[in-house]
Amino acid sequence: KMLQRVLCTVLFVGALPSLAEVSQGHISVVLLGATGDLARKYLWQGLFQLYMDQVSSGHSFTFHGAALTALEPGQRLMFDVLKKLACPPDESPNRCAVLKDQFLKLSQYHQLKTAENYTVLNREIETLLRQEGLKEAGRIFYFSVPPFAYTEIARHINSSCRPPPGAWLRVVLEKPFGHDLESAQQLAAELTSFFKEEEMYRVDHYLGKQAVAHILPFRDQNRQFLDPIWNRHHVERVEIVLKETVDAKGRTSFYEQYGVIRDVLQNHLTEALMFLTMELPANVSRAEEVLQSKLQAFQSLRGLEKNSAVLGQYQAYASQVQEELQKAQDYISTTPTFAGVLIHSDSLRWEGVPFLLTSGKALDERVGYVRVLFKNRAYCTQSETLRDAEHSQCKAKQIIFYIGHGVLNTPAVLVSRNLFRPVMPEGSWREAVGQSDLQVFGQPLSDYYVYSPVKERDAYSVLISNIYHARKDFFITTENLLASWGFWTPLLDSISHQPLRLYPGGVENQHLLDFEMVSGEVAFTLAEPVELLNPNRLMPSDYRTIQSKFRQSPLVSAWSEELISHLASDIEKTASRTVAQSGQFHLALSGGSSPVVLFQRLARHHYAFPWKHTHIWLVDERCVPLTDTESNFFSLHNHLLQNVRVPYFNVHPMPVHLNQRLCVEEDGGTELYAKEIMALVANASFDLVLLGVGTDGHTASLFPRSENGLEGAQTVVLTESPAKPHQRMSLSLPLINKARQVFVLVLGKGKHDITTLLSRVGHEPRKWPISGVSPSSGQLVWYVDYEALLG
Amino acid sequence: KMLQRVLCTVLFVGALPSLAEVSQGHISVVLLGATGDLARKYLWQGLFQLYMDQVSSGHSFTFHGAALTALEPGQRLMFDVLKKLACPPDESPNRCAVLKDQFLKLSQYHQLKTAENYTVLNREIETLLRQEGLKEAGRIFYFSVPPFAYTEIARHINSSCRPPPGAWLRVVLEKPFGHDLESAQQLAAELTSFFKEEEMYRVDHYLGKQAVAHILPFRDQNRQFLDPIWNRHHVERVEIVLKETVDAKGRTSFYEQYGVIRDVLQNHLTEALMFLTMELPANVSRAEEVLQSKLQAFQSLRGLEKNSAVLGQYQAYASQVQEELQKAQDYISTTPTFAGVLIHSDSLRWEGVPFLLTSGKALDERVGYVRVLFKNRAYCTQSETLRDAEHSQCKAKQIIFYIGHGVLNTPAVLVSRNLFRPVMPEGSWREAVGQSDLQVFGQPLSDYYVYSPVKERDAYSVLISNIYHARKDFFITTENLLASWGFWTPLLDSISHQPLRLYPGGVENQHLLDFEMVSGEVAFTLAEPVELLNPNRLMPSDYRTIQSKFRQSPLVSAWSEELISHLASDIEKTASRTVAQSGQFHLALSGGSSPVVLFQRLARHHYAFPWKHTHIWLVDERCVPLTDTESNFFSLHNHLLQNVRVPYFNVHPMPVHLNQRLCVEEDGGTELYAKEIMALVANASFDLVLLGVGTDGHTASLFPRSENGLEGAQTVVLTESPAKPHQRMSLSLPLINKARQVFVLVLGKGKHDITTLLSRVGHEPRKWPISGVSPSSGQLVWYVDYEALLG
Repeated sequence: KMLQRVLCTVLFVGALPSLAEVSQGHISVVLLGATGDLARKYLWQGLFQLYMDQVSSGHSFTFHGAALTALEPGQRLMFDVLKKLACPPDESPNRCAVLKDQFLKLSQYHQLKTAENYTVLNREIETLLRQEGLKEAGRIFYFSVPPFAYTEIARHINSSCRPPPGAWLRVVLEKPFGHDLESAQQLAAELTSFFKEEEMYRVDHYLGKQAVAHILPFRDQNRQFLDPIWNRHHVERVEIVLKETVDAKGRTSFYEQYGVIRDVLQNHLTEALMFLTMELPANVSRAEEVLQSKLQAFQSLRGLEKNSAVLGQYQAYASQVQEELQKAQDYISTTPTFAGVLIHSDSLRWEGVPFLLTSGKALDERVGYVRVLFKNRAYCTQSETLRDAEHSQCKAKQIIFYIGHGVLNTPAVLVSRNLFRPVMPEGSWREAVGQSDLQVFGQPLSDYYVYSPVKERDAYSVLISNIYHARKDFFITTENLLASWGFWTPLLDSISHQPLRLYPGGVENQHLLDFEMVSGEVAFTLAEPVELLNPNRLMPSDYRTIQSKFRQSPLVSAWSEELISHLASDIEKTASRTVAQSGQFHLALSGGSSPVVLFQRLARHHYAFPWKHTHIWLVDERCVPLTDTESNFFSLHNHLLQNVRVPYFNVHPMPVHLNQRLCVEEDGGTELYAKEIMALVANASFDLVLLGVGTDGHTASLFPRSENGLEGAQTVVLTESPAKPHQRMSLSLPLINKARQVFVLVLGKGKHDITTLLSRVGHEPRKWPISGVSPSSGQLVWYVDYEALLG
Repeated sequence: KMLQRVLCTVLFVGALPSLAEVSQGHISVVLLGATGDLARKYLWQGLFQLYMDQVSSGHSFTFHGAALTALEPGQRLMFDVLKKLACPPDESPNRCAVLKDQFLKLSQYHQLKTAENYTVLNREIETLLRQEGLKEAGRIFYFSVPPFAYTEIARHINSSCRPPPGAWLRVVLEKPFGHDLESAQQLAAELTSFFKEEEMYRVDHYLGKQAVAHILPFRDQNRQFLDPIWNRHHVERVEIVLKETVDAKGRTSFYEQYGVIRDVLQNHLTEALMFLTMELPANVSRAEEVLQSKLQAFQSLRGLEKNSAVLGQYQAYASQVQEELQKAQDYISTTPTFAGVLIHSDSLRWEGVPFLLTSGKALDERVGYVRVLFKNRAYCTQSETLRDAEHSQCKAKQIIFYIGHGVLNTPAVLVSRNLFRPVMPEGSWREAVGQSDLQVFGQPLSDYYVYSPVKERDAYSVLISNIYHARKDFFITTENLLASWGFWTPLLDSISHQPLRLYPGGVENQHLLDFEMVSGEVAFTLAEPVELLNPNRLMPSDYRTIQSKFRQSPLVSAWSEELISHLASDIEKTASRTVAQSGQFHLALSGGSSPVVLFQRLARHHYAFPWKHTHIWLVDERCVPLTDTESNFFSLHNHLLQNVRVPYFNVHPMPVHLNQRLCVEEDGGTELYAKEIMALVANASFDLVLLGVGTDGHTASLFPRSENGLEGAQTVVLTESPAKPHQRMSLSLPLINKARQVFVLVLGKGKHDITTLLSRVGHEPRKWPISGVSPSSGQLVWYVDYEALLG
């Protein structure tokens, strides 16, 4: 009856569709969670906007609000919301009033709780359509409900509410879509059992933000300008930022489970990142092409590690959680409310360019932006005061997708005038004339071309319109979602017990949350004033009086970082002295994890190291191909050789891979290496051998009770490790003991027991091979960190 | 008699030395060119300052002005200058007046023209000393004369004016010290025949500029702050700049022969560059240590090429030259009055950091500075308006040695407050309080710690004092000079016919002289409006109609430089495309001299080349050890591999050296290489093979009538070359013809005959192996330069 009335009204209002026009078919929109927060704030308004926009499209509509609430109170609640729907400023008040009246009449409340309720809803829709003689075009089910309810609702819709053949079904899902990769996979699997991929519209409302939605079209429409500069040679850095002033008060029951990375970075900021880094498909409006590009871009992202992120928590958070979640006074939350994450892509286009994703609550301002800063490659002979924004290449060059709020307080696209005048779609973006003295990203606003939307639209209006138009490129597909969780989950796992920096909130944060990139990692710029989780460890100064001998040889001891830096300096000094004396330096290096930090330090901090005159030998090797990640040489190559200039001829990996097989005795790999040493190293006496120690007392690949290598004339031997990969090649103890210097590096708590043991035992190489290290005429020095020494 | 009178005066003036004090000995200063420009402007004042500073040092002094002018007029001219000597503001007027009076009495004019004159001068000095009973400490001869007079004067001094044993001789030389490497070597050789190295003080008055002279002490005193950041990981760029507003009017007879590079860059700016880039010696005041470090830094500089510089000439220069040098109206000068040069050091510390040296006449302001700009590695969460200079890491970080003039109008050292508070020597530098709203290098002055000299001193005063103190580290040694000319001469040669950009002068230059770095080269930012010199050689466009096929395959032809750049781009394109398709790129490269330029170009200009995914194979090799300079691999390593990051595992030299012997068939080197190819290259089909052609038609190491490799199943073969070394290893023709692409590079007049022949003959690989190159399913492209093609 209600629809009948509406159609009558429609027929008498001039601008409204004729019956012929509505022959496109009928669309039923079902909003689940119709009286919830999101529905009240954005969704009903978005549906009303859809109706206003599409009333003449040829489709007819009905809107069904649904919730668990019983019919009477539910109806009342829902119509209270609908009555307050606003008319947009660009709509004539008369037309809007008429349309609002119709919209109210087309809207109906349903209690959806039981299977029965869903069947009834379906029957009502069918009856209505039959009565009005309307063809069904499709049904939209909008899930504005908590995620735990998804599966149940999905099951009901699938079994009772599918439209008849020929009409489409679209279900719209709101985040969170899981909590990590596993839970997301599980949820996705459940949904997939009810809906086809093309039926699901996962909302990331950032994709409805006008500035974010315009990134790809901008890249497409400005290809001619961007093609030469949209790469690592020209881009200095990219910042993707969402700062909030509000905190999590009142929402901690949700927030405490998720935190800022799951709430903002994993979805909103990651999507923006993808729009920037993906290779541009030939057609940017074809969802499938965009998706494929995006998935490739995900694959190029370098994995995140613990130190890829800095994390913080605003001070009041703990008490808010205690209060709202009824926790004890000493309850400690490890949920970050601030995160800065450094992301690298290893694609050829972006290798080396830092992408900084930052978001937080209780910050000093509310603002969102995506900022691409270009390198300055110019020298301007003309003095500073005479430079003009359009022509001087010495002014900063940036492209900013300004999402909203902040000093501009509007979505905008900014392009530095010395870059290019961008092509913008005329109907939807227009050049803005603002206060030119405003400073934006270090420059006056007048230094930019500034464009803002002709019509500023709420993200949900945009998204609801895109659902109606089946623009799937504005939504998150299952593959996209899982790719993103796959990328973020390792970081989330590794930081779950990471200390958080406490910050007071607002402007009082000062520089507390500023952070810096150092060698591919990030760290807060200011030293830690207060740590939330402060592990109660012993400080170095407590140990200053420590012994300076270990097993009768010199001992250097410090916390590991300081120890490594000391060791690296000593190696450099030895190298320089040796090269000065003999023109070359023969350095034999061990595998394992401890030396990795040393290699990185040598590569990054020792610029004067005489690499050109250094020969690199391996102390031991695992019998795997050199390109295997298990290979000692592979690690040495990645962490050291790739970053310094050792001539190819001076690099001597162990020949564990001959005749397409690994460490077969007949292939003579050990003899080959022994010959190479004899040919190049005077007296087969290495200038420096770097060793480690295993928890079982092994060193090099010489294990307790090894048959080879502990004594005898053989200099290079094949051995068996108790751990995988079992087969090894190693220098022998007698060869090691011919070295001019031997440094032994021992790091970490795990080595405390063996260190203690070694301090007591004598020369027993068959039990503990390391105890047999005793250079016949050379020098032995122990580098043992406090943790290994003192436990 | 004169001295006697002076000594009497001295005895009665309180602050002045007693006889006992003057027992340090006597110093005679002879200023040659005593009435010239430099002497009038700076040198006499410097000598007077020396006298004021050292009158109580225990040394006594006499000053001898000398010139070619006859005695009477010479005396008059000289004393006119001396009478005008100024008293420094920090000197009491009374003391200064007394000292000036004494200085005048101690000064004497001599005509020095003939050998006789020098003998007389020497006799006068000896007589005076004997009469006064003074011990001789030393003699300073200051050459303020044109360079053509150097040899003659040096000969006279050496033969007639050397002091007796026990006293020192110091000769001070003013630039120019030659015109290029050859002339500098010649001049140095001549001077060396008269003077010992330690006797020569070559002046570069920039080393007397207080800000320049303080670079090394600053680096030394601030080691703790600079050590971690004074390197390529932290320094973004360095600018070394001397801008002048004056032009060359009145000096064109000098300037026309030298130009801005010889006048300013080769000496002043290069010295500043060395102070920045050299490794800091343990003791920065030991001249010998500093020199050795400096020479090493010179060795690390990457050679300059034509496109390392942008050059200009102010518009009025041509007419000034025409007028002053009586040239015809159509005389075209090729002398640059403006230059911007991009310099790279290949040291581990500085690799990749651009050093921009800029100088010019008729510019918009007079200023000199050395500016070290650090990278911004921070993200500041705090919004812009709340950042403070001391704590925010997001403000620019710079260290500036401000030489003088410009907005500051004083020498100064500026350090951004967010870097560190520098250690400065308290006696000589003090913190300056200036107008804090002044903008300096993009920031308000208040963002810096600013230090200026306690006592601003003229460069010549500083230098004369350093001559007196024998501080040789303030002067240019012969080795240093020749190293600098060795560095600059190739650029000077290559740009001698380079077009110059004309500029109007002053503020009207606008952005005309701004320039940009692109792939290791520089170019003006604005397109060329007018070119002064358009070299009249055949332009490539004249050849546009040339055949585009050679032996039925595509032909690319150009002058060699352009051809190489075209070839390098084509190789990069092929590489990127192949990597995108299959994840790797197998590139087989030939030896010989032609590819060297190509290798260099690839290393320096193709940053986007996917080296990480490229496998490098050899097309052929000489049977010599890989480390032999004759080895193809050695050359490839030196010119390419050493400069790019190809993983060790992807580099495949030919195994010509097995079992300590070369290319012995039984060692199975060819089979080994064939197996490696089979294992890694799909279908043994290289993605790209680069070949050359010999004058006998050989290609790879496949020579006419070779028994191996022209046909048959063997893929890698041993062959015999008619030229030494005779033994070779080579890919076979059938293997080459399996490649997906083959590029043949032919360069130079020497290849004209074989090119002509090849254009006529068919498929006759036994006569001309190159004619057998015909990829079965791949593409063949010829890259032949105009000289090879047209003779």
